[in-house]
Amino acid sequence: MLHFLYKTIHSISPIDNALSNKAQKHLDNLTKPQGSLGYLEDVAKKIYCIQGAPEKIYINRAHIFTVAADHGIALENVSAYPQEVTRQMVLNFLADGAAINVLCRLNNIDFSVVDAGCVGGAFPTHEKLIDKRLGEGTSNFAKEAAMNRDTCIRALCYGIELAEFSIQQGANIIGIGEMGIGNTTSATALFCALYGLDPQLITGPGAGASKSLIAHKAKVIEKALEFHSHALSRGDALDTLSILGGFEIAVMAGIALGVAKHKCILMVDGFISTAAFAVAKALCPAVQDYAILSHFSAEPGYMYVVKKLESSENQFPPLLHLKMCLGEGTGAALAIPIVRAAASIFNDMATFSSAKISGEIQ
Amino acid sequence: MLHFLYKTIHSISPIDNALSNKAQKHLDNLTKPQGSLGYLEDVAKKIYCIQGAPEKIYINRAHIFTVAADHGIALENVSAYPQEVTRQMVLNFLADGAAINVLCRLNNIDFSVVDAGCVGGAFPTHEKLIDKRLGEGTSNFAKEAAMNRDTCIRALCYGIELAEFSIQQGANIIGIGEMGIGNTTSATALFCALYGLDPQLITGPGAGASKSLIAHKAKVIEKALEFHSHALSRGDALDTLSILGGFEIAVMAGIALGVAKHKCILMVDGFISTAAFAVAKALCPAVQDYAILSHFSAEPGYMYVVKKLESSENQFPPLLHLKMCLGEGTGAALAIPIVRAAASIFNDMATFSSAKISGEIQ
Repeated sequence: MLHFLYKTIHSISPIDNALSNKAQKHLDNLTKPQGSLGYLEDVAKKIYCIQGAPEKIYINRAHIFTVAADHGIALENVSAYPQEVTRQMVLNFLADGAAINVLCRLNNIDFSVVDAGCVGGAFPTHEKLIDKRLGEGTSNFAKEAAMNRDTCIRALCYGIELAEFSIQQGANIIGIGEMGIGNTTSATALFCALYGLDPQLITGPGAGASKSLIAHKAKVIEKALEFHSHALSRGDALDTLSILGGFEIAVMAGIALGVAKHKCILMVDGFISTAAFAVAKALCPAVQDYAILSHFSAEPGYMYVVKKLESSENQFPPLLHLKMCLGEGTGAALAIPIVRAAASIFNDMATFSSAKISGEIQ
Repeated sequence: MLHFLYKTIHSISPIDNALSNKAQKHLDNLTKPQGSLGYLEDVAKKIYCIQGAPEKIYINRAHIFTVAADHGIALENVSAYPQEVTRQMVLNFLADGAAINVLCRLNNIDFSVVDAGCVGGAFPTHEKLIDKRLGEGTSNFAKEAAMNRDTCIRALCYGIELAEFSIQQGANIIGIGEMGIGNTTSATALFCALYGLDPQLITGPGAGASKSLIAHKAKVIEKALEFHSHALSRGDALDTLSILGGFEIAVMAGIALGVAKHKCILMVDGFISTAAFAVAKALCPAVQDYAILSHFSAEPGYMYVVKKLESSENQFPPLLHLKMCLGEGTGAALAIPIVRAAASIFNDMATFSSAKISGEIQ
């Protein structure tokens, strides 16, 4: 497993940024004032670089994985909802009743639910469900590591395999979303550990915690970071993920690696998916070259996280600003049409010369 | 004509905001934390109110009108592009080569080009082209009124008729976009007159003006506002539009009135379309209840305009923030899928009770 993980990481190469200028030249020849399509142009350039300067950039099938798992940290009463909701929501995904179902159907996106370890045992088989159970939820990271290193490696490898499965089926744009009561706590702890952020600053309501619950949650995270400080101080991303992560977060990080390995487009959803992306980036910085941030999560800590991410090359801001904080992959499902639009603009517009349109007055 | 215009204006009634609470109640029963779909929920509530509390809200066909005309003010050298580009771009729209063509095709939106008065005479007939010519471009508003009051009324009535034509064909969501070299100058002057904004503050590059050109443009607007100050001081929206407007702006304002009259959804595009919307709102404040601002234009003055608009009831911020400033209706074409998503969420998600999902811990 470890060998497969490291082989994957080593096979991921940064995109060639020199191609970006070539893409910009093409965009500047299209019948519009230069730069007037804003971030659509940045999206098109990124895809052009990812795909190695094809004549037409291409978006094939889109696929969103909503990865679900439970969290031991929920025992610390950090969520406004009871843990059983994770399982109930998985059943809702399978019954087509959740927001992510509605949006994937509307936007013609393939959709799979991954059980990475919900409490209550395996689900009955279902065509939409992929069983990648890693246990009955993680351990409580307030008291011990959320998972051991081997399980964490297995989760990452599961994710890589999921991406490869999807790509073999014809997808080249893959979104990561999640469900897991307690997982904003895990994601917040990961951001604090990875980026040196303060839990008091970035802890937010998740699925609707009250002010006093947020304060409690921040304290739980603070204490856990203190408790694991020795192990975390080594700055090893795999250890950090094992200690503070969730099964679904680790699987999503693996999907990110698999998508980058195969030079496809990764759509990162909101706060928790971004934590998975941040971990994948810590394992392999080139992953960022394949990622598009779908939307600006309303979770208050997100803005601090985004500042850290935007300082990287090839990272433009999240595409949508709709004050959403649902997770599941809903932001990715809404942003995929924007990416498709960017590709169509790049491919299908007339040029100034082909349309015989006068240029700027010199 | 004047009678038809006033009859239309008087037939537009504000939406019943009490219905909004009913819509929120329904949204709060859906399987997601309350409010977690952000502006999607606001969009759904607005449509619910517009449509008078139906069991399911509905989005039928979507239609974008890109209205083109020339501007006498172009004689003052306010644009980075020569006037002939208006006509050339209309031909590009008809040949399917422009950004708006690509986006309407991708997003399954009906598309029409309206010639409201381009320089160079009528275009050859074409299935996508609607001839509503009001002249060979407006007069130069630096020296005289852009159009006389009768022509302005005619333009508004043309717009109302266009909306009614489209609605009869089955559309219930209608976008307004434009093309017209010089029209950011006209739009900027209108915003200054309607909202008391300073041309030095809100004049921007439009289709790519340099810093010195922007300074010149601001001066041209300042002088024109001074020149017409007596007539403008009456604060009559119809006069203001006649003096500073463009044919395409007046026609778009008419479309806005027609859409509101028939309780359909108006998608306002960027800076110039918003000027048309602002005029329609000045003629009939209830128009705002039917309008969705598609995107936050990168034209620097837009943020000042949006502050004025957001202070109204039933006006949430523009949906998309993609740093676009192309016009044509491109922002509307990108935002329509978001509106469709909002409607699907409202209609198609399971409720907590139907999906047997536990609520928040009390």
